[in-house]
Amino acid sequence: MKISAATEQTFLEQVFTAHGFSSEDSNLLADTLVDADLRGISSHGIQRLAWYLNMIKEHIIVPTNKPIILKETPTSLLIDANQNMGHIASALAMRKLIEKTKKSVVSIAVIRNSNHFGTAGYYSRMAAKAGLIGVSNTNTRPLVVPTNAKDAFLGSNAFAFTFPAAPHPFVFDGATSVVSGGKIQVLAKKGEQIPGEWAIDGQRNVVKDANAAEDILSKVAFTKEQPGGGVLTLGGNSEENSNYKGFGNSLVVELLTGILAQGSISADTNTGKHDFSQFFLTIDPDFFGDLDVLKSNVESMFDRIRKLDHTPGTQIMIPGDREYKRYDENKIHGVTIDDASADQIRNIAAELNIPAPEEL
Amino acid sequence: MKISAATEQTFLEQVFTAHGFSSEDSNLLADTLVDADLRGISSHGIQRLAWYLNMIKEHIIVPTNKPIILKETPTSLLIDANQNMGHIASALAMRKLIEKTKKSVVSIAVIRNSNHFGTAGYYSRMAAKAGLIGVSNTNTRPLVVPTNAKDAFLGSNAFAFTFPAAPHPFVFDGATSVVSGGKIQVLAKKGEQIPGEWAIDGQRNVVKDANAAEDILSKVAFTKEQPGGGVLTLGGNSEENSNYKGFGNSLVVELLTGILAQGSISADTNTGKHDFSQFFLTIDPDFFGDLDVLKSNVESMFDRIRKLDHTPGTQIMIPGDREYKRYDENKIHGVTIDDASADQIRNIAAELNIPAPEEL
Repeated sequence: MKISAATEQTFLEQVFTAHGFSSEDSNLLADTLVDADLRGISSHGIQRLAWYLNMIKEHIIVPTNKPIILKETPTSLLIDANQNMGHIASALAMRKLIEKTKKSVVSIAVIRNSNHFGTAGYYSRMAAKAGLIGVSNTNTRPLVVPTNAKDAFLGSNAFAFTFPAAPHPFVFDGATSVVSGGKIQVLAKKGEQIPGEWAIDGQRNVVKDANAAEDILSKVAFTKEQPGGGVLTLGGNSEENSNYKGFGNSLVVELLTGILAQGSISADTNTGKHDFSQFFLTIDPDFFGDLDVLKSNVESMFDRIRKLDHTPGTQIMIPGDREYKRYDENKIHGVTIDDASADQIRNIAAELNIPAPEEL
Repeated sequence: MKISAATEQTFLEQVFTAHGFSSEDSNLLADTLVDADLRGISSHGIQRLAWYLNMIKEHIIVPTNKPIILKETPTSLLIDANQNMGHIASALAMRKLIEKTKKSVVSIAVIRNSNHFGTAGYYSRMAAKAGLIGVSNTNTRPLVVPTNAKDAFLGSNAFAFTFPAAPHPFVFDGATSVVSGGKIQVLAKKGEQIPGEWAIDGQRNVVKDANAAEDILSKVAFTKEQPGGGVLTLGGNSEENSNYKGFGNSLVVELLTGILAQGSISADTNTGKHDFSQFFLTIDPDFFGDLDVLKSNVESMFDRIRKLDHTPGTQIMIPGDREYKRYDENKIHGVTIDDASADQIRNIAAELNIPAPEEL
């Protein structure tokens, strides 16, 4: 079924406020989930609500905590998320970086003691709205098996990069691994086969059954028990197609997050600890050339790419094209809620004694 | 055959000085080539010498030109390489960024009107020596076919990221595409088959014969004629294994180089134009935590990864491990010069009336 973005926003704000978040934080948290649903990234939308609320119940997330700025200069920022939702410290960091970069061309922030922060692209898109280049990284639970290894160690470690352009910014946003854990979870729920080489078992044999893969992932990500296997790095199962490059990309994010923040590295977050770290970078392209000229050069490059001859039945899409198309459609027709999520939403509403969205 | 690094350095300095480079620039250029040979990256070593000298003869490179600093702030730098070797402007940029970042935590540089700059890692390693995180990017000639497209458009677009650590820094350095054009060239010279899925023809059929692939690459990279095909993005031939992520990584470099510099994009450098652009970023990790502590955390993470259970007959190597191992070996035993390069070196020496390295 579908609900309108406005209905989703109102409902989520009520839920978060009822759990002790300030109205400002509730508004932000709701917006990040609605934004993900509008873009068709439903793995990071309202279907995560029950999971977040569960972490609040378990005191892993403390809604009344405020982020603490530990260090700050005109170009840099170290923030303690203070065990609250990653979204709150991350939006604060990005707002401050935008101000800083408007004055100093470039600035960076690192967040420690944080939690899941939603889609990485949410924050890099904040920079794009301000005419800036934005980079957003997070580490995650251990899911990804390094080149030649048998055990998961790295996170799926998201990387988002946004560059201002019209009609929409360039938004490259996703796991550095071949796929995110969520993509396998979605197939498992449908009982489908994995189309490509995404997951391996403890002998580095490719696992095609999504439920078998999901079984491996839930163990390696959430328990000390390491049965072996996990998600592949970008580049496949052997060194033949340079899977060490995907490994390198994941390590770059690990170094900029867990290491720079002196928080947990992904490998050490499988025991109930929710100690993730985030990294943000913003650059003012206007230092290098007039922003309108740069944007028009970007747009003309993208148009040339979109128009390249391509294989029959396919389309050449620039990163961001797909999600902005869905955004525009879902803004009109509403966002899709699957049955399981609808049940959860009704239960949450009943528990808090607030009205569930009418459409459900 | 092998020659010592010292001999190679002396010879190269003489060659560059004879072509009108200052003694300081000659020293740098020689060092970048010797450094690549020591690390076993022979595609970027002395075997490129004849190619560089040819560009000087054709006035594509002007050895007496000095880089021009167009704009500068305490955190940023825009440099015109002034049609000289990319190495010269790049080393200048990195030296200045290191100074800037020691004061301001982060700084960035963009270089326009540049040329080939050797290995990207040379510059990011300069940052590591100074205790900083370094990023180094360049665009290249068009070699890489976007997801679903039939024609090359993107460069192999190098990305290097270096993080301070002992016994050697983390150095992730290479093409963002599945392989560099040079790797296919090496196999073609040997008349070998390509082991993986690296290159495609104009119908996106994988090309396994290295000579056939090299034939495609030489056309797409150096001529207006576009027969179709080129190098694949990291992630393979179909969307199944997320080759759009490799496409995204290549685009990120294109945006930070050709676009920010307002130079040519890779797609427009196939007609004899040598208008490449570079991007550099440095970060002072010491802002976020004591550098010695961070380094020790990095080293312990890497050691844990190296010791993970792995498939028989393989080894888990952290980016940089292989090149530092070769560096140490070649420092003692000398760098390997192939027969064709030895011939070229002797010819160059005879032409300039300087002694060729004795070992040849």
